[in-house]
Amino acid sequence: MPLTDMSLAQLRAFTPTVREPEDFDAFWRETLAEARTAADLAGAAAAARRTPADTPITELIVEDLTFPGWGAEPIKAWVARPTGREGERLPVVVEFNGYNGGRGVAGERVLWALAGYVHVFMDTRGQGSGWGTGGETPDPHGANAAVSGWMTRGILDPRQHYYRRVFTDAARLVDEVRTWDFIDPARVAVTGGSQGGGIAIAAAALSDDIWALMPDVAFLCAWEHGTDVAISDPYQELARYLSVHRDHTETVWNTAAYFDGVNFAKRITAPALFSVALMDTVVPPSTTFAGFNALASADKAIEVYPYNGHEGGQTFQWQKQAAFLANRRAGV
Amino acid sequence: MPLTDMSLAQLRAFTPTVREPEDFDAFWRETLAEARTAADLAGAAAAARRTPADTPITELIVEDLTFPGWGAEPIKAWVARPTGREGERLPVVVEFNGYNGGRGVAGERVLWALAGYVHVFMDTRGQGSGWGTGGETPDPHGANAAVSGWMTRGILDPRQHYYRRVFTDAARLVDEVRTWDFIDPARVAVTGGSQGGGIAIAAAALSDDIWALMPDVAFLCAWEHGTDVAISDPYQELARYLSVHRDHTETVWNTAAYFDGVNFAKRITAPALFSVALMDTVVPPSTTFAGFNALASADKAIEVYPYNGHEGGQTFQWQKQAAFLANRRAGV
Amino acid sequence: MPLTDMSLAQLRAFTPTVREPEDFDAFWRETLAEARTAADLAGAAAAARRTPADTPITELIVEDLTFPGWGAEPIKAWVARPTGREGERLPVVVEFNGYNGGRGVAGERVLWALAGYVHVFMDTRGQGSGWGTGGETPDPHGANAAVSGWMTRGILDPRQHYYRRVFTDAARLVDEVRTWDFIDPARVAVTGGSQGGGIAIAAAALSDDIWALMPDVAFLCAWEHGTDVAISDPYQELARYLSVHRDHTETVWNTAAYFDGVNFAKRITAPALFSVALMDTVVPPSTTFAGFNALASADKAIEVYPYNGHEGGQTFQWQKQAAFLANRRAGV
Amino acid sequence: MPLTDMSLAQLRAFTPTVREPEDFDAFWRETLAEARTAADLAGAAAAARRTPADTPITELIVEDLTFPGWGAEPIKAWVARPTGREGERLPVVVEFNGYNGGRGVAGERVLWALAGYVHVFMDTRGQGSGWGTGGETPDPHGANAAVSGWMTRGILDPRQHYYRRVFTDAARLVDEVRTWDFIDPARVAVTGGSQGGGIAIAAAALSDDIWALMPDVAFLCAWEHGTDVAISDPYQELARYLSVHRDHTETVWNTAAYFDGVNFAKRITAPALFSVALMDTVVPPSTTFAGFNALASADKAIEVYPYNGHEGGQTFQWQKQAAFLANRRAGV
Amino acid sequence: MPLTDMSLAQLRAFTPTVREPEDFDAFWRETLAEARTAADLAGAAAAARRTPADTPITELIVEDLTFPGWGAEPIKAWVARPTGREGERLPVVVEFNGYNGGRGVAGERVLWALAGYVHVFMDTRGQGSGWGTGGETPDPHGANAAVSGWMTRGILDPRQHYYRRVFTDAARLVDEVRTWDFIDPARVAVTGGSQGGGIAIAAAALSDDIWALMPDVAFLCAWEHGTDVAISDPYQELARYLSVHRDHTETVWNTAAYFDGVNFAKRITAPALFSVALMDTVVPPSTTFAGFNALASADKAIEVYPYNGHEGGQTFQWQKQAAFLANRRAGV
Amino acid sequence: MPLTDMSLAQLRAFTPTVREPEDFDAFWRETLAEARTAADLAGAAAAARRTPADTPITELIVEDLTFPGWGAEPIKAWVARPTGREGERLPVVVEFNGYNGGRGVAGERVLWALAGYVHVFMDTRGQGSGWGTGGETPDPHGANAAVSGWMTRGILDPRQHYYRRVFTDAARLVDEVRTWDFIDPARVAVTGGSQGGGIAIAAAALSDDIWALMPDVAFLCAWEHGTDVAISDPYQELARYLSVHRDHTETVWNTAAYFDGVNFAKRITAPALFSVALMDTVVPPSTTFAGFNALASADKAIEVYPYNGHEGGQTFQWQKQAAFLANRRAGV
Repeated sequence: MPLTDMSLAQLRAFTPTVREPEDFDAFWRETLAEARTAADLAGAAAAARRTPADTPITELIVEDLTFPGWGAEPIKAWVARPTGREGERLPVVVEFNGYNGGRGVAGERVLWALAGYVHVFMDTRGQGSGWGTGGETPDPHGANAAVSGWMTRGILDPRQHYYRRVFTDAARLVDEVRTWDFIDPARVAVTGGSQGGGIAIAAAALSDDIWALMPDVAFLCAWEHGTDVAISDPYQELARYLSVHRDHTETVWNTAAYFDGVNFAKRITAPALFSVALMDTVVPPSTTFAGFNALASADKAIEVYPYNGHEGGQTFQWQKQAAFLANRRAGV
Repeated sequence: MPLTDMSLAQLRAFTPTVREPEDFDAFWRETLAEARTAADLAGAAAAARRTPADTPITELIVEDLTFPGWGAEPIKAWVARPTGREGERLPVVVEFNGYNGGRGVAGERVLWALAGYVHVFMDTRGQGSGWGTGGETPDPHGANAAVSGWMTRGILDPRQHYYRRVFTDAARLVDEVRTWDFIDPARVAVTGGSQGGGIAIAAAALSDDIWALMPDVAFLCAWEHGTDVAISDPYQELARYLSVHRDHTETVWNTAAYFDGVNFAKRITAPALFSVALMDTVVPPSTTFAGFNALASADKAIEVYPYNGHEGGQTFQWQKQAAFLANRRAGV
Repeated sequence: MPLTDMSLAQLRAFTPTVREPEDFDAFWRETLAEARTAADLAGAAAAARRTPADTPITELIVEDLTFPGWGAEPIKAWVARPTGREGERLPVVVEFNGYNGGRGVAGERVLWALAGYVHVFMDTRGQGSGWGTGGETPDPHGANAAVSGWMTRGILDPRQHYYRRVFTDAARLVDEVRTWDFIDPARVAVTGGSQGGGIAIAAAALSDDIWALMPDVAFLCAWEHGTDVAISDPYQELARYLSVHRDHTETVWNTAAYFDGVNFAKRITAPALFSVALMDTVVPPSTTFAGFNALASADKAIEVYPYNGHEGGQTFQWQKQAAFLANRRAGV
Repeated sequence: MPLTDMSLAQLRAFTPTVREPEDFDAFWRETLAEARTAADLAGAAAAARRTPADTPITELIVEDLTFPGWGAEPIKAWVARPTGREGERLPVVVEFNGYNGGRGVAGERVLWALAGYVHVFMDTRGQGSGWGTGGETPDPHGANAAVSGWMTRGILDPRQHYYRRVFTDAARLVDEVRTWDFIDPARVAVTGGSQGGGIAIAAAALSDDIWALMPDVAFLCAWEHGTDVAISDPYQELARYLSVHRDHTETVWNTAAYFDGVNFAKRITAPALFSVALMDTVVPPSTTFAGFNALASADKAIEVYPYNGHEGGQTFQWQKQAAFLANRRAGV
Repeated sequence: MPLTDMSLAQLRAFTPTVREPEDFDAFWRETLAEARTAADLAGAAAAARRTPADTPITELIVEDLTFPGWGAEPIKAWVARPTGREGERLPVVVEFNGYNGGRGVAGERVLWALAGYVHVFMDTRGQGSGWGTGGETPDPHGANAAVSGWMTRGILDPRQHYYRRVFTDAARLVDEVRTWDFIDPARVAVTGGSQGGGIAIAAAALSDDIWALMPDVAFLCAWEHGTDVAISDPYQELARYLSVHRDHTETVWNTAAYFDGVNFAKRITAPALFSVALMDTVVPPSTTFAGFNALASADKAIEVYPYNGHEGGQTFQWQKQAAFLANRRAGV
Repeated sequence: MPLTDMSLAQLRAFTPTVREPEDFDAFWRETLAEARTAADLAGAAAAARRTPADTPITELIVEDLTFPGWGAEPIKAWVARPTGREGERLPVVVEFNGYNGGRGVAGERVLWALAGYVHVFMDTRGQGSGWGTGGETPDPHGANAAVSGWMTRGILDPRQHYYRRVFTDAARLVDEVRTWDFIDPARVAVTGGSQGGGIAIAAAALSDDIWALMPDVAFLCAWEHGTDVAISDPYQELARYLSVHRDHTETVWNTAAYFDGVNFAKRITAPALFSVALMDTVVPPSTTFAGFNALASADKAIEVYPYNGHEGGQTFQWQKQAAFLANRRAGV
């Protein structure tokens, strides 16, 4: 696969116009308030709980977390952390997953825990059946006539859209994590690849005082532009929907604007380490750069992988992220 | 594309074992009873209504139908019929659509009306955004973690499965049609291609005294076998789900058994004209033959298209269907 | 599929240089004169005839037309029209078909008739075996060594080229239609999708006083440019031919110039409603815009489908066409 | 690509039923008689002529042959032979080409001439624009509505079918060659790959006393079976045609029977060396074996290439052919 | 993707004939002896060494191993193990990698270490540049003209073949591991996926008293059959080689016989847990079953994943492997 | 396939920056000196020898050449020339082959010999198993962990790189040819297609007084740019390598610079006839133009094939090359 988008110089300067709803902040403020209220109302029944994971792993503490997400609905996550640190408050990395993946079997993502962090890996509601070892979190909400996939579920109304629930789950997970006594609430980083990167960006904007934002090949930035240039799904789910519902174009992009990573990025000042791959056929590099270029963070960097596809930097990039956090950890 | 399945001789003899739940009949009896009760409870608010379609068509009467389907939820359909037949009770053809298609713009399916029938074309809930000119019927029900698509929505519990709602919509549409004063309730035929054929088979089994069953390249028969041999989606959605949820195999096939066309076919005695295409890459011919071979109908025939793919016989087959009904109409 | 061509702004301004033979008008004047003479010479044997179609359709009048096309050779078409309009002169829509399709089984295209028009659907000589339900019109003319397909048949000499015969058939069909007593000769519109759009453009230029031109995703405009940028056949048939016959480039483009929609468009002043799809992989949008931008019509519009492939606007666009004609009909 | 057909043991035993028209021999006797009569009637105007080829080649005599084929129409061929053999009568190898190829630029096929044979390489009428350096022979005959390609041109009537003309050209070329004073008429071998192999089989059956028949990966044997099992074109052209013209199946196979290599093979007693490739995706090995197994020749062998696709044995097989002829030449 | 091979019942009974060289045991005995001698001769320069890995991981001991493989050449591996077990002798799992993968960045494979095992992950010489984060071990040996890939390097002579070196590396790694004071030499298990499974089988046969053999979707069993039926590389590398070197078939299969997993399996009596995926497009299930069915082990089982492709059971299968070892560990 | 690169006008002006090592000339001077010394040291054992080829060809003299290439290693080639020219010194064309091809069976490339030239066709070490009838020359040198293929073998060190050996073989072949008494050492031309074109460029730069350079669709020019834009292998082998070895980018391009055709082209003053194809999907036209535009030759031309893919001009181009040489031959 050759380069799939603009030249690197053009990418670095790319700042497409993205619609921003007037009530963007109000929309999300109310959405989060609703979710917190729902959890309060649900009370003990919906309260978060951590139970030991059923796993052969003995060298880390691995727990199965259920916490109240959007509508106080139960969302699953794995929590993994070092043994023998009783009484210590460790930094945390909260990770979100790629499109159609699930949190899987306990133990699949342990690098952060092995490096001494508390690692939290959220299941994405409704997803988790496309690859890997499975998700377990339902999304108990129906939708308008939609393309198979998640991009167009609820696309006719921002209040109904699928990502309203997912991004709220993510922000609520940060809320939950900060209540734990073995973590340092000032050192909560968010990360994730592809869709997980998009969720991380939203979580960073929707949560206060995020320590670091580290999305890889971030999806969900500049949706309208992405749909024009992306070679494949999931952006093409939007094109497919609009190829059928030919008169819904304005409605679709107006809804999408509430979930566009560019609008979240403008509101983020946390230190950020992005990564992007220039031969990516799934997430056009220009969309990730649109998000990165919009960031309000003073301390931001983007690692460029000129010859990678959507797999991006993989563990190689994780090493860079680990160094990025270690530097900040040292600086505390 | 060469032949995609067994030889024709083998197909004619193919009767795979398909699981049949002990409570299959009870399940559906209760399901339909629930739906009828729901409509009764909902009362006028959910009552069926027909309004003139907004269309340039002047030479047929075209109406936009909304009727109460599963859970008394509003389902859309087009009704098209000849002008100038006041006081006459015409035979009816109820048609269901293929996977991911919607009822579209009024006027796209008019051949039955042009041949003097009342034609009813049901929107498939939740679908209608994959091709064509669009569906308008939501499916307001969430699901377990599922593969994108509809095959695995609710797959862990037959009461939650997507096709429980769809097949109920179909049976309830036949109920509704029979209340109209311009149709002959003894002459209600059901038809459809691919998924529409599978829905037609279910509707024929779930409704009394169907006049004729005419599915083309019928999908949704012998799910488990179909998943072993189908080259492409939608059967492969099931394989994809099970490739991730490796321990759900039994659960999945037990749920699927409630929706398998073979189990419906065993219960059908209506006259039937099927069609099948031997180079079909979507619906393996052996699955359609599994349904056809299981039919209890005394009067049954299957038109074989040896060189067609999933498009099957198209209007050529419609001519055969029109002759099939004309013969039976003449015989009345 | 992402956008397949330039940005919309660039497309609206795109006016490529297209060769125009000095004797373009003379060529076509002589060609049509020859065809008319041939029909005169052939006399009764070749005279047009309409016979009732063998079809289950009862709610429209459907007739099987045979008329003398190029060389007075018999060309087939379907004629469909409303019943009960004796003595009325109805407006007409003449439609041409896409590449490798045939007029098919009677009744497949009835929307215009259902909206109160006389609808005429021409078989494309030699084609009609690639998809659908078949064409019946031979093309009794051999060719130079050619790529399989029709683009390069007779490509070494404009007088031998396949589209010389097809475009003449189309113009002769308009001649024929205007002789009927149930149509209004001042209200003859031409339409068609893809190749059918290209034929409609030619027919509009070769016939006098066309009421409206309504081509969709029109093929056959800016052949040389199209061959440079088209992803797939049929434009690539030309590339394939020239990849073998490496010294025929000039000859090929000189022949093509006689059949290029851009040259016809320059000569058209009829009201026109085009449509184009920006994710079209068969007909590059820039070729359709080349034709549209060249139109001499004062009253012209183009409907843009940004997210569609070669299927374009489908029935959604037909509704727009119906409104376009209704406005003009009202204005008469 | 894995094996594309049966196991070798099954292939060796494979003798499918192939329709044989009662008038097969009469059909071809009359066809050849007609062609010879046409040439006689055309006289000098259509007489064969050989002129020096315009080529940089100096070490062989290369001539450009035009000879009267079917209907006395001019067919091109290259003739290449050793220099310095004045007065000698050399053995001849007549070669036919693969689907959609042309005789190309002089000098592309010279191995037989380099080995001391007179080599004649026939252009296939109408073809020669799909690959290589081009054909120059028109096929001045129109056709029924047909799939693009050559398989279905004239498929509704054996007298109109494309291969009636091509096979006649081939037999007439053998006639012509035998008139030359520098060849030995008792030593005329025929060969060719793919379609060229099919033509060679026909030529061997339609000509008397062929010295040797050496087809490679021979196409055009067991058409009906081939269409069931072939992965790709050209056999799939027949499937495509029949997928549209759904009621022409019998007509098509009845026409095809006049051109089926199995029917020719039954009539051949010449020594034969075939070759076949078991991973061939174009010509299913079972079709070539159907031809080989039907041969009436006492002296026959087939070289099996278990790991090759449609390229077969290439020059490696030519070495075996050269040895095969050398043995027979030595035996003279 | 549907099932890619025989039915499960047929697979369970599948025992293809695989050539077995008379000197198979001698060949390997001499090969290992040579390798051990080479290491002895090389002495300290080539001696194995373990150094701390450069990694952010703090919760496991991770070491970078270099050990003398074939020809005493330096081979890399990662060793990962629990902290805080000083003085304990832990069981070991030695893992080999899939085709064209490398050992990658330290920390990518840690599940066994997290479950309390010493985990050793060998780099495959020459490979490690096709996917993942890279290998570092050269293969300093040239080859005959070969297909790109590794299957045909040295294919003309078993002593030159690439896998002679790789399998020797694997056996030598087991030798090395058994010298460590923190492992239990009686509890050395071998595992790996795809090519890694094939190497594990070889290692189990070439090492004494292996505790457990746990290959997943094992490649390199029944090479000749695999080349007939595999859809894709690497088996098709052999077909490609033989499609060019048409006269090397016997030589190739005679060489391959020295490396065929079936011949190793016959010699293995260790407890074994295999896994196989029935929709695998890379390693045909029948080849893995050929290996499994040939095992001499009394205690053997195979986990079947009916709906998975080449990814097989992933971490889900690892859980089964962990239970398999835990049972045996408990039994010690 | 549409145009695969820039417009022709842009291509003609395209001169990308290509790294040039300071010691480029020294590197090659030493490399050739080493090779010559190696041959001297090896003496008679490694001396070139020509033996009659085992071939059915009788009309040319065909010889099997083995000559000492890099490291005095034996490299194979075919030599073909006219008979009956005793005592004459003929001009020579030395040809190199495309990627993964071998010199094949004697007699496959004879056009130059047929036109009165001595033709020498070199086997490419290690290659010759991907297509055609096979190579026979081993490459007895191992490599770093590499992508399957040849581009990355030894990529970490120019002295280890595969093409250092291949280009040296080529230059040494020119040395060898010039020692023959039947050739004219002042008239040695070099040619080849794709990789063969790249080798020819290198050979022209590394040999003195080359008579003519005639590469077709030349590969191996502007490696870094080529890797950015090439759709397929072999350039993509470099991208694949760098997608894994993410920190080797500088090293890779520094090594590549020693083998880049652009750097060789700058040093060439021989008359040159290039060819290029604008729909080439393997060698981007811009890379070939980068080489052509860099040529220091006063007498240079490039034949452009606007509609061809990687097959380029084939024998059609050979005719142009033959005329190009004939003109220069006449001018001598």
